This record gives sequence, C-alpha cells and structure tokens, in this order.
Amino acid sequence: MAANASLPSWNDGTTKSAILDFVTSVTKSGGPEFVPPAERIATFDNDGTLCCEQPLQTQFYFAFGRVKELSAKDPTLAERQPFKAVIEHDFNMLFGLGKQALFELAMATHAGITDEDFHQIAQAWLAEARHPKFGRLFKECTYRPQVELLTYLRENGFKTYIVSAGGVDFIRAFADEAYGVPREQVIGSSVKLRLEIKDDRVSLRKLPELNNFGDRDAKAHNIGLHVGRRPLLAFGNSDGDLSMMRYVKSGSGRRLALLLHHDDAEREAAYDREFRLSPLSEALDNAGDYGITVVSMKRDWKVVF
Amino acid sequence: MAANASLPSWNDGTTKSAILDFVTSVTKSGGPEFVPPAERIATFDNDGTLCCEQPLQTQFYFAFGRVKELSAKDPTLAERQPFKAVIEHDFNMLFGLGKQALFELAMATHAGITDEDFHQIAQAWLAEARHPKFGRLFKECTYRPQVELLTYLRENGFKTYIVSAGGVDFIRAFADEAYGVPREQVIGSSVKLRLEIKDDRVSLRKLPELNNFGDRDAKAHNIGLHVGRRPLLAFGNSDGDLSMMRYVKSGSGRRLALLLHHDDAEREAAYDREFRLSPLSEALDNAGDYGITVVSMKRDWKVVF
Repeated sequence: MAANASLPSWNDGTTKSAILDFVTSVTKSGGPEFVPPAERIATFDNDGTLCCEQPLQTQFYFAFGRVKELSAKDPTLAERQPFKAVIEHDFNMLFGLGKQALFELAMATHAGITDEDFHQIAQAWLAEARHPKFGRLFKECTYRPQVELLTYLRENGFKTYIVSAGGVDFIRAFADEAYGVPREQVIGSSVKLRLEIKDDRVSLRKLPELNNFGDRDAKAHNIGLHVGRRPLLAFGNSDGDLSMMRYVKSGSGRRLALLLHHDDAEREAAYDREFRLSPLSEALDNAGDYGITVVSMKRDWKVVF
Repeated sequence: MAANASLPSWNDGTTKSAILDFVTSVTKSGGPEFVPPAERIATFDNDGTLCCEQPLQTQFYFAFGRVKELSAKDPTLAERQPFKAVIEHDFNMLFGLGKQALFELAMATHAGITDEDFHQIAQAWLAEARHPKFGRLFKECTYRPQVELLTYLRENGFKTYIVSAGGVDFIRAFADEAYGVPREQVIGSSVKLRLEIKDDRVSLRKLPELNNFGDRDAKAHNIGLHVGRRPLLAFGNSDGDLSMMRYVKSGSGRRLALLLHHDDAEREAAYDREFRLSPLSEALDNAGDYGITVVSMKRDWKVVF
C-alpha cells in the first residue's frame, strides 16, 4: 500500500493503521467522514510527546543555566529558595515543588528582558546545550516518528499545533527547526507582557508574573482562545493532556486521540505513574473508556530519535 | 504597471503607491529589504478598519438583541443597569460607560453557553441582521478596498490577522466569509472558559468573566502571546490601535503602519476625536512623528463597500 510509505519510522500494526485509516478517511473527498481542510487541526503536547522529557524537561536545564547566570550578578539569589535548590542540584526538593511551581521558577528566570532578546538567548543556548544522557543537542532529542507524523498530517492539509504546559517563548525558539511548526502555532504557558518604549523603540518585556499555566483543562481553554475550533486529532503522553484528548474525542464526526506510553527503557525511558513532574496514570487507566489510542514506544516505533 | 491592477478599489496616489512599494520591496527575492514568508505577518484592527463601526460596532447590535432575549426569560434584567439602558435605547448612558464596560456588557450576554453554541447563534444572527443606515447585512458592511488589500497581502505570502478589542468569538463567526481570515488568525477580547462534561461530551463554556480586553497596549501583548513575532504591517483607525502601530513601526527593517481616517460623510461617515466609543485623536496628531501613513477614505478609496 502506497500510504504505508508515509510513516517509515512507525512499525506496521494496529496503531499505524489507526493513524493512516483516520487521515485517509477525513481527507477522502466526497467520503462520509470528509472534513474540509480549514477544520483539520491537530494539537500535540511537546515534552514527552514530541521530545524527550527525561530526566526532566529541556526548559528546566535552560532555566537552571539562567539561575546560575543571574546568581553570579545577584549572590543573594543563591540563598533563596527555590533558586538555592537549583544551585545545589537538590532535585528532590525541586521535584517536590510540583510542575506548576517549577515552571513558574523557570519563567521567573526568563523575565525582565524583551521577548525578542529572550528568543536570541534561548536559540543561542539551544545551539550548544546537550542532553546529559544521550549526548546529542537537546533540540535533536525529538522523536523521529513524531516529526514524520507532523509532516504527514501537514501533507494532508492539517494545521499542526503544539499545545504545551511549557513556556511558549521557549518552545518557539526551536519549534520551526525541530518540528516545522511556526511560532504562531505554538501555544503554551506564558508570562504577562508589558509594552515599553526605550530610545523610541517599542518592545514587549516579559514580566515575572504568570499569565497562564497551560496544563490540563487549560490546554483545552487555550485551544479555544488561540484556535477557536475543536481539533480533529490530539496527541499527548501524560495526565496533563487528558482534558485535551477528551475534548478532541468528544467532538462530532471522526476524531483521533493518541497517548504515547514510554515503555522503552532500552532506547529511551520507561516511566508513567511515578514521574512526579508529569505523571501518566488516569489517562492510561481510562484510555479504553475514552476512546484514546495508546501508542507503545517499544512496539510501535521502529526508531526513536 | 501590472502591480497597479492589484488594488482596483484604491485610487492611484501616494497611499496606494506606499502599499505597493512596501509589498514589492519586502517580497523581492534577493533584494535588500527581502523578508522570508514566515515573517510576513500583517495585523488589522476590525471595527472601523475592516468594517463600518458607525453609529456603533456590530457586536453591540448583536449583544442588544441578546439582552432582549435574556430579559424575556428573566424580567428583572430590564430593571438593572446597564441592561436597562439597552432595553430603553438610552445610548447616552451606554456611551458614557466607555468602550471596555460596554464590551464587558456585550460579553456578559454571550456567556453561559459553549463556544460552539455561541458560534451557531452568532452566525444565525449575522445571516439576517442588517445595518440600520445602509440596509445591507452587517457582515456585508465590510470595506471593499480592505478586503482587496487582505487578499493582495496573502497573495504575496503574508499571513493576515485580525487584532481587535471586539470579542474574539463574535468576529470568528464571520471573519472567514467576510475577509478570508480563518478563526485561528482572529485575536480579540475574550472571556474565561470552563471545560465541562455533560452527557459524556466535553465542551468549553463561556463564562461571564473577562479574560482579556484586547485594546491599546493589549493589542501588542496579544500579538506577542498569539503570534510571537513582530508584524511587518499594521492597519488601524483609532487611538486603540496606536500601540500596535508603533510596535510594528519600531521593528528593524522596513515596516508599514496605516491609519484609516473616516473623512467621508457622503459615502460612510466623518468622525475622529468625538467618537466616544473609540476616538481617533493622539494617533492622528502624531502620525507624522511615528511614521504612520494616514489613509483618507475620501481621497484614497474608489469605492467603500
């Protein structure tokens, strides 16, 4: 079958067939399940769905580097929590803070500069920073089967979005290069912005105050705000993505929700319930009831990176 | 010149030339001012820039209709301000509330239903509701020269956005049909959303609480949040658009900011400083200093609708 040539890094099997069947069905002109291109929206989580999030999400490595830079300028920072824990690599303390507090810490280290300066700083870091286990650049710790899937969806008229709890500006610094997703199709957590005039130049300054933490229900809220349309397809890997997957699946007509299960200790990592920063538990237990298709990294992917 | 065929409803002159020169220059491959397609973002205000906002913005007519419907179900509504003023057509009282309060009133009448139900209700209203002065459908009170400009920009690789203080969901109900702008490229004021599960169906319910009032500086903030990139071109018609225009103009390289001046009482309306809901004063006085190109409806447009 010609269609099978589309996702070469996916193993043949029920998961790959489910994806190909779905796309064929909603794009078949005149078919009973045809959906016009304008309505073909696909939303992907980022950390753990499109790229490796173990031992922790890329943005934290970047933020920890920023904490070190900032504490060099302001030594009192190293005495204050949670910055102290960062300097001392006290991961137990940091993990205990929870996902939102840790992202707020990260966001605080991204503030006080313009969004354009932030973009430059993040891109410069991403050009050199390497994953501690895999040794490759963080921005190359993306999953090849997923990049193929994004491309395949776009070839079939889908608009592909990232909907993340991670900071929107950080993901925008690499999403185009890594995934072919332009900045305006990245949705994520955000800080408040302030319009500033300096030397007659008007810019947007990032403030250390959270505007939106885009996890769980907020993923669906953010889709409503940014896209204004229920997606046809959603792909996630944790309980943080469950609301988005259920929102997508309960739309009328044919929809597809996919959940990546990290069950591949040999090639990447095996984890679910115990990953404190972003556990997978409720979504895994209820995938069948909610019509969510579980993707096994070990079984379904021919290659990972 | 072949290029002049592009904007047939614009009169030849310095304004039309400024637009054509700008687009030719930033799209000329290998030229000194070339900008890659991914960076070609154009942002347009809606009310008064793309469509008629006199005697008041379309969304208010819709909201006033909703107030009447809601007060039929809940008669106490007609006794409470500002709803009472709506029922009694007390426009002096309503105008005195100011733009934000009036939009909040409008938003309150849009709440309590899902975004998908709202879309249906707004589309049904727009299919029949007519402008009190021009007699045509509201959704046909769009400016032909502007629709041509949007099309011309898209033909030249621009992504065209609406950035409005009006409610995002209301504009999404007609933007594709009226302007060729898809829902996900409409940015506007918004209410908070709540994810709800009812009969196993997950939906987004609009709450009567403002999430964002997208006027003035917030237009630039919203561009940062939704687009993540400074636009190349902005088009507005009031002081509410000045921050967006200055933000665009102070970017590096060539940029174009356009300000529509309603000086055409015969064909549409002549107003600026005295329009209480959305005055044009500071932007008009300082257009020269800020490098903003003033568009005269009377002089620059061959036809209006």
